[in-house]
Amino acid sequence: MEHLNPAELVLAKDAQDLLFLDPRTVTAFQDAPVSDAQLRAIHDLVKYGPTSMNQQPLRAVLVQSSTARGRLVEHMLDSNKAKTLAAPLSVIIAADLNFHLRLSELFPVLPGAEEFFADPEMRTASATMNAHIQLGYFIVGVRAAGLAAAPMTGFDHQALNADFFPDGELQAVAVVNVGEPAQNSPGFARLPRLQYEDVFTSV
Amino acid sequence: MEHLNPAELVLAKDAQDLLFLDPRTVTAFQDAPVSDAQLRAIHDLVKYGPTSMNQQPLRAVLVQSSTARGRLVEHMLDSNKAKTLAAPLSVIIAADLNFHLRLSELFPVLPGAEEFFADPEMRTASATMNAHIQLGYFIVGVRAAGLAAAPMTGFDHQALNADFFPDGELQAVAVVNVGEPAQNSPGFARLPRLQYEDVFTSV
Repeated sequence: MEHLNPAELVLAKDAQDLLFLDPRTVTAFQDAPVSDAQLRAIHDLVKYGPTSMNQQPLRAVLVQSSTARGRLVEHMLDSNKAKTLAAPLSVIIAADLNFHLRLSELFPVLPGAEEFFADPEMRTASATMNAHIQLGYFIVGVRAAGLAAAPMTGFDHQALNADFFPDGELQAVAVVNVGEPAQNSPGFARLPRLQYEDVFTSV
Repeated sequence: MEHLNPAELVLAKDAQDLLFLDPRTVTAFQDAPVSDAQLRAIHDLVKYGPTSMNQQPLRAVLVQSSTARGRLVEHMLDSNKAKTLAAPLSVIIAADLNFHLRLSELFPVLPGAEEFFADPEMRTASATMNAHIQLGYFIVGVRAAGLAAAPMTGFDHQALNADFFPDGELQAVAVVNVGEPAQNSPGFARLPRLQYEDVFTSV
């Protein structure tokens, strides 16, 4: 597998390594807890990533009590149960379907922006879309804190939402295990990536 | 507006500034073109960002000919037309709805992974979800190249898809203007961001 050094970038090589080139989606973590200070620092970095009309719909639910962790693991696919139980921290990344109620504060340049999102179906689509974009930022932010992020979409979304978000205001988009990677994790070779020519075309 | 320095991060402060703290969604660019080498370097960085089952559904269509640019601008909301016309480069970020056809190569650890995505509706949902996560990485990657990214979702998705992707294999998720930001762009104050307590909760 090639491991290019994108020389055209302004970003320093050690930062490229930290954020993209070195990290792997780990399945085993060290016991060290993730601190509140680390989570706040991650937020204070990635909160600046852009979203449509500054919606910022991503919400992060830190699953910390053993009861909550037990409930979460119930909803994960079998292949994700053990690693979620063993992670120092699991975070449910959700979209706030009522993000529009804060737009007068978050997007004051367009008075009445809230009314654009009166239709629940269109609002849900915008919330989940932007929460996914923010999930990309969040994964980068976890790595910026020197931690590993293991994002998972393999869970029973309906059951998890019914259990954790019974009022229907939040909708889970991913569960991310976070922590210090175990010394020899992961045990498999990096999966192949698409080439530039596979991804980019011109018209 | 506060401008915190997340001291808990491993990522160097200048990299924090480059990727998240300093950039703004600009509406005016310098004339300097975006080079092929820059785009390849961005790809060679962000291709390592994780996706579900290594799907990598994001496709990037560089709108370069004046004919194509004219067609693109037709589909943009009025408020996005002038800035798209003036940008050095506009990129249509799309999801490849047939990403599953390459899973035997991209996710060899699970033979037959392609069959999980036989249902077109579920496949489309997975493709767009992961393309949005990758859009987050792409925006970070553009900034890593020292360029500004101005992502837009304000366009007639149906009309753009019918025009640029008539075979239905790709579905646009965003249009991103890319280039060197103009000297005094943008002219408005940074929009407010949610606080940690607004975004993070514990259970």
